Amino acid sequence: MAKMTKWVYSWGNGKAEGKGTQKQLLGGKGAGLAEMTSIGLPVPAGFTITTECCSHYFQGNKRWPNGLEKQIKSGLKKLESVCKKKLGDPKDPLLVSVRSGAAVSMPGMMETILNLGLTDVSLEGLAELSGNRRFALDAYRRLIMMYGSTAMGIDRAKFDDAFEQEKNHQTRFRIGKQAGEKVLDTEVNESELEQVIERFKDIYRAEVGAEFPQDPYEQLVGAISAVFESWMAEKAITYRKVENITGLPGTAVNVCQMVFGNMGDDSGTGVCFTRDPSTGENQFYGDLLMNAQGEDVVAGVRTPIRLGELENLMPELYAQLEAVRAILELHYRDMQDLEFTFERDKLYMLQCRTGKRSPEATFKIAVDQATKPLLDKREIAVLVKQKYLPKKYAALAGKPIISKAEAVARIAPEDVERLFYLVIDPSIGEIELEARKIGEGINAVPGAACGKVVFSAAAAEAQAAQGEKVILVRKETSPEDVGGMHASVGILTATGGKTSHAAVVARGWGRCCIVGCKKLEVDEAGGSLTLGDITIREGEALTLDGSAGRVFQGEMPLVKPQTPEEFKTLMSWCDEMRRLHVRTNADTPGDAARAIEMGAEGIGLCRTEHMFFETEQRRLAMQEMIVAETEAERVSALDKLLPYQRDDFKGIFEAMDGKPVTIRLLDPPLHEFLPHSEADMQRLAEATHMDMDSIRKRAAFLHEANPMLGHRGCRLCITYPEILDMQVRAIIEAAIDCRRRGVTVLPEIMIPLTIAAKEMQILADQTRAVADAILAEAGESLPYLVGTMIETPRAALVGDKIAEVADFFSFGTNDLTQMTMGFSRDDVGKFLPDYVDQQKAAIFTDSPFHSLDQEGVGLLVKWCIERGRSSKPKLKIGICGEHGGELESVKFCHNVGMDYVSCSPFRVPIARLAAAQAAMEEKQTAPRPPRKTAPKKKAVKKAAGKKKAAKKKAAAKKTRKKVTKKKTAKHTGKKKVAKKKKVKKAKKTRR
Amino acid sequence: MAKMTKWVYSWGNGKAEGKGTQKQLLGGKGAGLAEMTSIGLPVPAGFTITTECCSHYFQGNKRWPNGLEKQIKSGLKKLESVCKKKLGDPKDPLLVSVRSGAAVSMPGMMETILNLGLTDVSLEGLAELSGNRRFALDAYRRLIMMYGSTAMGIDRAKFDDAFEQEKNHQTRFRIGKQAGEKVLDTEVNESELEQVIERFKDIYRAEVGAEFPQDPYEQLVGAISAVFESWMAEKAITYRKVENITGLPGTAVNVCQMVFGNMGDDSGTGVCFTRDPSTGENQFYGDLLMNAQGEDVVAGVRTPIRLGELENLMPELYAQLEAVRAILELHYRDMQDLEFTFERDKLYMLQCRTGKRSPEATFKIAVDQATKPLLDKREIAVLVKQKYLPKKYAALAGKPIISKAEAVARIAPEDVERLFYLVIDPSIGEIELEARKIGEGINAVPGAACGKVVFSAAAAEAQAAQGEKVILVRKETSPEDVGGMHASVGILTATGGKTSHAAVVARGWGRCCIVGCKKLEVDEAGGSLTLGDITIREGEALTLDGSAGRVFQGEMPLVKPQTPEEFKTLMSWCDEMRRLHVRTNADTPGDAARAIEMGAEGIGLCRTEHMFFETEQRRLAMQEMIVAETEAERVSALDKLLPYQRDDFKGIFEAMDGKPVTIRLLDPPLHEFLPHSEADMQRLAEATHMDMDSIRKRAAFLHEANPMLGHRGCRLCITYPEILDMQVRAIIEAAIDCRRRGVTVLPEIMIPLTIAAKEMQILADQTRAVADAILAEAGESLPYLVGTMIETPRAALVGDKIAEVADFFSFGTNDLTQMTMGFSRDDVGKFLPDYVDQQKAAIFTDSPFHSLDQEGVGLLVKWCIERGRSSKPKLKIGICGEHGGELESVKFCHNVGMDYVSCSPFRVPIARLAAAQAAMEEKQTAPRPPRKTAPKKKAVKKAAGKKKAAKKKAAAKKTRKKVTKKKTAKHTGKKKVAKKKKVKKAKKTRR
Repeated sequence: MAKMTKWVYSWGNGKAEGKGTQKQLLGGKGAGLAEMTSIGLPVPAGFTITTECCSHYFQGNKRWPNGLEKQIKSGLKKLESVCKKKLGDPKDPLLVSVRSGAAVSMPGMMETILNLGLTDVSLEGLAELSGNRRFALDAYRRLIMMYGSTAMGIDRAKFDDAFEQEKNHQTRFRIGKQAGEKVLDTEVNESELEQVIERFKDIYRAEVGAEFPQDPYEQLVGAISAVFESWMAEKAITYRKVENITGLPGTAVNVCQMVFGNMGDDSGTGVCFTRDPSTGENQFYGDLLMNAQGEDVVAGVRTPIRLGELENLMPELYAQLEAVRAILELHYRDMQDLEFTFERDKLYMLQCRTGKRSPEATFKIAVDQATKPLLDKREIAVLVKQKYLPKKYAALAGKPIISKAEAVARIAPEDVERLFYLVIDPSIGEIELEARKIGEGINAVPGAACGKVVFSAAAAEAQAAQGEKVILVRKETSPEDVGGMHASVGILTATGGKTSHAAVVARGWGRCCIVGCKKLEVDEAGGSLTLGDITIREGEALTLDGSAGRVFQGEMPLVKPQTPEEFKTLMSWCDEMRRLHVRTNADTPGDAARAIEMGAEGIGLCRTEHMFFETEQRRLAMQEMIVAETEAERVSALDKLLPYQRDDFKGIFEAMDGKPVTIRLLDPPLHEFLPHSEADMQRLAEATHMDMDSIRKRAAFLHEANPMLGHRGCRLCITYPEILDMQVRAIIEAAIDCRRRGVTVLPEIMIPLTIAAKEMQILADQTRAVADAILAEAGESLPYLVGTMIETPRAALVGDKIAEVADFFSFGTNDLTQMTMGFSRDDVGKFLPDYVDQQKAAIFTDSPFHSLDQEGVGLLVKWCIERGRSSKPKLKIGICGEHGGELESVKFCHNVGMDYVSCSPFRVPIARLAAAQAAMEEKQTAPRPPRKTAPKKKAVKKAAGKKKAAKKKAAAKKTRKKVTKKKTAKHTGKKKVAKKKKVKKAKKTRR
Repeated sequence: MAKMTKWVYSWGNGKAEGKGTQKQLLGGKGAGLAEMTSIGLPVPAGFTITTECCSHYFQGNKRWPNGLEKQIKSGLKKLESVCKKKLGDPKDPLLVSVRSGAAVSMPGMMETILNLGLTDVSLEGLAELSGNRRFALDAYRRLIMMYGSTAMGIDRAKFDDAFEQEKNHQTRFRIGKQAGEKVLDTEVNESELEQVIERFKDIYRAEVGAEFPQDPYEQLVGAISAVFESWMAEKAITYRKVENITGLPGTAVNVCQMVFGNMGDDSGTGVCFTRDPSTGENQFYGDLLMNAQGEDVVAGVRTPIRLGELENLMPELYAQLEAVRAILELHYRDMQDLEFTFERDKLYMLQCRTGKRSPEATFKIAVDQATKPLLDKREIAVLVKQKYLPKKYAALAGKPIISKAEAVARIAPEDVERLFYLVIDPSIGEIELEARKIGEGINAVPGAACGKVVFSAAAAEAQAAQGEKVILVRKETSPEDVGGMHASVGILTATGGKTSHAAVVARGWGRCCIVGCKKLEVDEAGGSLTLGDITIREGEALTLDGSAGRVFQGEMPLVKPQTPEEFKTLMSWCDEMRRLHVRTNADTPGDAARAIEMGAEGIGLCRTEHMFFETEQRRLAMQEMIVAETEAERVSALDKLLPYQRDDFKGIFEAMDGKPVTIRLLDPPLHEFLPHSEADMQRLAEATHMDMDSIRKRAAFLHEANPMLGHRGCRLCITYPEILDMQVRAIIEAAIDCRRRGVTVLPEIMIPLTIAAKEMQILADQTRAVADAILAEAGESLPYLVGTMIETPRAALVGDKIAEVADFFSFGTNDLTQMTMGFSRDDVGKFLPDYVDQQKAAIFTDSPFHSLDQEGVGLLVKWCIERGRSSKPKLKIGICGEHGGELESVKFCHNVGMDYVSCSPFRVPIARLAAAQAAMEEKQTAPRPPRKTAPKKKAVKKAAGKKKAAKKKAAAKKTRKKVTKKKTAKHTGKKKVAKKKKVKKAKKTRR
């Protein structure tokens, strides 16, 4: 016979059948209670009905699965024996709460029934035992209401109305309230409560067609089913959909002994944190209410007292709480948020979970826990002596709770982000924010921004020049808007996704940005936007919350979190742990400097094209180059661009003194640079002495059906080699100039969009020819690299061949994702949401433009690295797509053996963190050393083989590390490069 | 000391140092002479200076490489000893020709010097020896002219002018010609020739500043260098560029004994084919001139006699030629084109090469050679008896010359194509064609067409309906033009490449098409086109030569080659040999029927979208579906489309009765179906009762930046599942209807543009749910498959996972190429030419849209097949891109183990041919059976291992073959499927 499924897990008296790790099966609450019980904390006893049981309930057409009833009865018996009370006992009744609890918290979504077990009879027993009949009556009233509405589906308002009527009808005159003045629940007296109970029973009878059940077991059965049902209630389903909660079988049901904090002045209830959640200070922190239940704390009707005051009021209880605090932090190894009740001096832990904390506190707590003990020796000794703390904890005195690796592992990317972005003053509650919101879009770049609305890049630049803070609002942005985007504090677009032009550009600067705001209608000519009924005109204020994708009318107060000292400490730990180098994507000296502050070790991607939009002259020179019809005209226009480019590179080399700078040659299709408006075309016509017709023709000629797969990247240099000539000249001339002024320059010239080894070879040869000629003429020597981006699937496929003619690979995973998946990032808005929607198609878990598609694109990346290194073992490999700053993607980069990642300056700390976490995770999953005890004879040979393999692996790893170190030393430069004598040698080895 | 490089290869007297296979080293001519010599044919002796020597000449700054002179002198000595004459001998001088000869024929491009060795002195020896002083003088005249112009760079016109003047001045009056009447060279007498020689010497002296060299060795040195130089002459470089001839080191130089066909009536010269090159008849065929040199034949001044006449004139010589013919065909195993000269009864072979032949002859000769002996026993016996044919050839009597496999291997795709397309009457010479050409473009689809010009699809349809032949001329075509394209006999566009919309669609129908005609300007509104100075108005005649990409004004006579019986025979051999199945891409019953005639075994790709454009109603219903704003509206529009689709599928199922039909669900982005013109939008507005503004908005909404990577393919069905529902319903309902009428239906439903297993699973599940519900309701069972196209790199990468939920894979290599390489086929026109240009970047050897990029895209295909079969060993795999009808690509498909290829109807025979060639090539390269002799002891173990592996391999191959056979039987159907009883079982196994 098959073993009966275990549906019920009991806990109590220091023992629990479940464990803290069984969240999926027991729900968060059930697992927590079991865990707290088993580590010796005082927890009211009870049992959990599993989430699987809930799932079976629905699969089985809302019937209880086999064996459940039997297991519940047995669980109840255990509970009664632990509590030494019986359910329904007329003298000393066991009362229980019945609560839902899924693996993921769904606050307010699911049902709870308290005081279950009260009947007309046991009510009197409770009254007598507690010496407080009003308390007993109030508990009974609540039970009928909760049971009636939750288990029987009676409209809760009926009970509320009846209570209100009764309160107003009777109580008002008695206690002399004015008409309209609110009567508090606590002002209702016993006889009035008796009246309310009668009216509640009447409602119950009228609605259900039966009496309120006087059999406590019947109440229990009804309550359990009610919790099951609540899992599929519409509001719960909607909540899960909105919050994208998937993969849960159902809710668990926790049946737990009731404890009462409202049994008198030696009773109470509270909520604490083991450390201060806003500053992170190592001090016990919380509020409590004397003579009150948990609901009262939440309701916020009475003013709570600070936890410290309890030390004076009830010193023993406080000491016990201090011990609980110590046990919790030592056991859970993190700051905890705990709920507790004390009933007549006796402490009960009701819940504990990892506590939420401010951005600053996140870092302070992690660093403190990894460097300082929670309590000093004396403090621990006191608690042990008082027997509040088991002796074993004495050994932990004076030691930090966690390792540095654990501290690093705990930090999430969002923790880092939150430190750097403005936020809307958190004192404005969520409810108010939702009410004031006028629009919603995709939260492309987090942070908040507030400024005057403008509708064109030109207006943005003009107003910003006058010191105004502006929000640029566009249907969508194009490269021509880049200047205006940079001048704005925030960007809002009607179209696009997280990888649209606006999002990608804004993310590079950490500029608050909301895209895909569908309801937004922009009337650029009329100078206004509408969002539903609301119209906002140019110059009026708008606030964006880029983190939540919310748009607000008018100004909202913004604040910036402080960067705590502990952030720097933790980041320095990351730097010690990681193997991956972290570079940045930066196009200007300003960005470069900012990135260095953020810890960047070099530039992994400097896009030369943004430079062409910085001024009108540059733009015109660039456009002149594009509309040129002959090579001679093109060369003449390129000559005009040369000094600009050279100056740009000088600035960047200076900012990155001693750090490598990867410069990508021109990448976008030429038509992206052409003017769109008639006025701009006119200006270009004047500048180039061409007629409008020719310009229009040229623009039409350059138009492409699929520009993403068109004439761009290095294809431009195959067709127009003179473009490469100019750019390489600008780079090398700038480098020579900088070197002569004592700046250490390490340029890495990067060819974009390569598809074949021959193509790369042609361009690399040309690059070296131009560079070497300039260097020879200048009598200088300079170590420089010529590498390529790997951003087409073909390049990745033939990586072994391309590696033979490239000094380095840099994965452009944005484009690689586009081509591998056949997803135009400008167009995915129409269908990608369906693909990622976990309630709909659920084809992907995340946008592949946000987190690298490891299964598909990642396979290509891995293949390319393996093949590339097979033909050039020391090939330097990095990534410079948006993914270089995303946690999981960076970990992937580490795991596949890249040398560096590169991301926007603001994401550099996240990359450092991710790289450290990846290195630590690798350490943990590394195979354990072989057993020391002699293996059995038969197994010897096999084991020896394994040992050998392990050794080999270890050796290989060592070699790789060495290689990495060497390479690093070579290119991060440090002192070596500064020593000019060695430059020649370096050049030799680096080629 | 390093061995001296061998620069000179001698031949003569039945022995040769070189071989026929050394074309690359000896050039085509040198290798041929060596080969003919060594098989015993009478060849004038000589020696070849290698092509590598030419290459060294240029590398060494135009100096002769070390050892060359010594080797030439030694070669010359051998030659003199074979000929028993000496260069410069005053009595009996050896005369030689010095000719260029590269590995690839470059007719008219390179230099030749004849009669070398003549001097003022030896001239008289030759005169005496030949008894013909005029002949000797003429030879000397020619030498001075050729040597002077070729070796010394004197303008040839100077000699020609002098000769003309002399001829006219002296000869005319003597032989009584009228003024202006041409004097023939042969009419010039001895004394006149002496005058000419003097004038030539004067010219030489004046231009060179020295006397014409009287040292024959000096002449030889000059002539050899002149041939070297001609390799780098501008006209030769240009020729190689135009003809895309690459990879050659240089030209060889052939120094060869002169033989003279103009030594009298027992001398002569001729050109023959071993079979009739225009009919393919097995009869010796050719022309000869008595008492003439080869130049006279080419000049065409005298009327030649037929080869047959020689049998009467010189029966022994004729018998010798018959023997030569036999030896040549038996040795070279193909019809040969030979040049010969007989000098006083003695036959000399000057050249032989595989003969050019007509399309019809190609097939007749191949089939004849593989089935019938060249000569019967009696004929061979006669030749052997007369000792013209060595005895060994007697054994070959009565046997076919080649195997069937050789016959198949010999056919090129172009041979097949030429059979099916109209051509411009070949009697119009190349020179006239070039003169009458008014424009040029890319030869997208071969064949010729002639008709009245129209500028819109509507006009094309209207005029065609009235029986007119029309040529559709557009700037570019779009899906809206498909109806008009079909109605036209030829298509001409100004833009696009071989894979542009126009080219791909036209190729599908084998419709003559020229694209990318850059100079073409189309004025659609004005109803005219201009090509340079020429303007052609609507309704005027235009002729296209799609094979050459040439455009002609007016009507040119077109002829169609006959399809010979031997074509069918050869194709039937292909079918016996091949393993790959060949299907067709067909969207209409007409196409399907045509494809069956061509030998298609099923439909590999039926595109449903073309059906939507067939009539106005369909188009409107489709557009209504697209502009629908709600699901309900969309479903209602789809309901209108359902009957159309169902009827289409019925027609196709009927045409393909018993053969599998793969139907691809809707693939292109929806905006491709929307109207562009205001008038069309207006009509749509009326049909849908929508306002124009909404339609414009919807069109704008659907617009995409990169439609190729946009909302298309199965993404449409993920967003709008109702589209899939309608299409599957139409397929299954049509299938049921056909089955009930006795038609055997084997539908294979194909999901396009898949990227993930989950996506495929969702759509396959939905497809099966819809299909099974309809079948259940109808009480029918039907075997159908649900598979997917593999056309994104990601799908190929995760092929193992997708295979788990797909019944078949069909590689869409057009899109796969676009995405893998990042090449939009609509946009590559601007840069792909540079990539393929072998004189420029030379990155690829062919357009990857024409011949599959095996290195890159092919790697993905291979990977996907291996991975796909690893999870589903019997997975059916095919290809349905344009590549399925291209020789090398089809061979690739065979080699990677596909089950079938699918291509447009007109390419089906090419695919059958390619599949057969691939199978034969595989057989040839299969590893030889292991040696039978006992291996040495030490090697035993190793060999055993190898043997085992070989066995394993063979076994695996066997299994695969079996699998293939089984599958084939299963799906090509034959009788099995007709037996309804077995259908159920088939369905079971096919899933």
